[in-house]
Amino acid sequence: MSEFALIARHFAHATAKHPQTILGIQDDCAISQIPADCQLVSCMDTLVCGRHFLPNASAYAIGFKAVSVNLSDLASMGAVPYAILLGLSLPKNDDAWLAAFAQGLADCCAPFGVELIGGDTTRSEVLTISVTALGFVPKNSAVRRSGAQIGDVVCVSGNIGTASFALQQLLQNKPCVVQDALDLPIPQVHLGQKLRPIAHSMIDISDGLGQDLGHILTASGVGAHIHLQDIPYHSALSHLSNAQKWHHQLNGGDDYQLCLTVSQSDFEAFCAQNPGALYAIGTITATPQLQLFYHKQPVDFNIQGWQHF
Amino acid sequence: MSEFALIARHFAHATAKHPQTILGIQDDCAISQIPADCQLVSCMDTLVCGRHFLPNASAYAIGFKAVSVNLSDLASMGAVPYAILLGLSLPKNDDAWLAAFAQGLADCCAPFGVELIGGDTTRSEVLTISVTALGFVPKNSAVRRSGAQIGDVVCVSGNIGTASFALQQLLQNKPCVVQDALDLPIPQVHLGQKLRPIAHSMIDISDGLGQDLGHILTASGVGAHIHLQDIPYHSALSHLSNAQKWHHQLNGGDDYQLCLTVSQSDFEAFCAQNPGALYAIGTITATPQLQLFYHKQPVDFNIQGWQHF
Repeated sequence: MSEFALIARHFAHATAKHPQTILGIQDDCAISQIPADCQLVSCMDTLVCGRHFLPNASAYAIGFKAVSVNLSDLASMGAVPYAILLGLSLPKNDDAWLAAFAQGLADCCAPFGVELIGGDTTRSEVLTISVTALGFVPKNSAVRRSGAQIGDVVCVSGNIGTASFALQQLLQNKPCVVQDALDLPIPQVHLGQKLRPIAHSMIDISDGLGQDLGHILTASGVGAHIHLQDIPYHSALSHLSNAQKWHHQLNGGDDYQLCLTVSQSDFEAFCAQNPGALYAIGTITATPQLQLFYHKQPVDFNIQGWQHF
Repeated sequence: MSEFALIARHFAHATAKHPQTILGIQDDCAISQIPADCQLVSCMDTLVCGRHFLPNASAYAIGFKAVSVNLSDLASMGAVPYAILLGLSLPKNDDAWLAAFAQGLADCCAPFGVELIGGDTTRSEVLTISVTALGFVPKNSAVRRSGAQIGDVVCVSGNIGTASFALQQLLQNKPCVVQDALDLPIPQVHLGQKLRPIAHSMIDISDGLGQDLGHILTASGVGAHIHLQDIPYHSALSHLSNAQKWHHQLNGGDDYQLCLTVSQSDFEAFCAQNPGALYAIGTITATPQLQLFYHKQPVDFNIQGWQHF
């Protein structure tokens, strides 16, 4: 089948048309109208078989996750997702596989009104999916990594370490009740937008809380005290030792929760309005160093996080 | 080396900062200000080792071409290139290879003021490069495939078939004086913009003139008469038989010249102002069919073009 027939069958109508799209999949490029008073926010993440997902992962989950990890990057800026472009390199033209992949992609796009506006498909020995996500943010309001202020509350948006635990269970052929956390992560798009007016700094946790919080600290020129007993975790992890739990939370990846810093007063006001949306796990400090505590006792822990190389 | 150190060393300063960029490579997403009265034009093309370039291709050429093929798509809309995002999946972290790749990428970006604003790098067994290109076009002025009108002159912007001939020579271990046409194609960015006010339809020739012109005809619901003796070719192809030459011109890919349709009067006025910029090769007809002629005699030729699958 030609690339064109393949695109037409599986992708041309996978997502709903977005009102800002002037021209979608049907030409050399897509054409988009950026809303007045908005800036464009863009990112690109690549998933490689055997590195970002297991070779036996379902096509649906791969399609879903390829979109989700990118929408999560948009969420961390407080942006409104708009569209994606898809670069799909796959070993063979398997109609059932493509149908399931396109469905996963579409199901991740749909709740956020995201449209597939372009991209290409090609053959490769290694299944590789690159997605570019585009979003909008009101002028000069995007949340960056670099704005953390001394005294800020450090928060996360949900359980940390679940996906890393799920991956370990799968690799050990053990039963896993939390596989969806690994396969079908929900990007915190709406929460990111809600936090845009108050977050001083924000990042999504893709490479491990330790490493990703480290990016905020480095970009902001500050440090943090983190209280390990306050990092929320799924009950599936409750039987683990502290060292095992911290490994998944600090060094595991693929959580796609938000990590952010916000003033104490804004934190309290936000939590009163949005109970259960944020979990305080520490404080920003002047000393440019990440210090870990467990019930006020300093903890020595080797933060590594996901290495792309 | 971590992804971050790798990006910092080779890519963080590879390209010059563009005035529309608010935030480049240093956060989860890039932030861009789209010029007032412009629309965003976006595309994504993936190059896979062994499929889009030979395994022994130089890192410099791969970096150059990964950008060029995308700027060529922008050119075909008449757009002004702005920025790229890079998804780089590579087998090993080879410093010399990366330096040469980044230089090729930068050298293709520089003449057009294109900035690398985002992307990611990861490890993969198969060298795979996805590039998303972003550009601007004055509101509602982008040239599409679908506007060809009966009576239009069909033109190309330069020699056709050179890259396909070069690839054949390389695969046969023969000396090749036109390897640059294959390795370092120059995207027709400035010409595309000049043609924007007058071109009724336009496409870049990446998959072969026959197939790409076919896209214009299909999208426009028209046909064409093409006069094979008028398709320009490099003198390196002059010893070939007609059948061999037509194979490279009609079915070969990787030319990255523009193919467009324009009224007879606009064609003449443009050529008077820009001698040597366009070559008339035929006429748009009402019958929705591509008909080939050689010195007025009908020619039966099997148009196939590059198959992505």
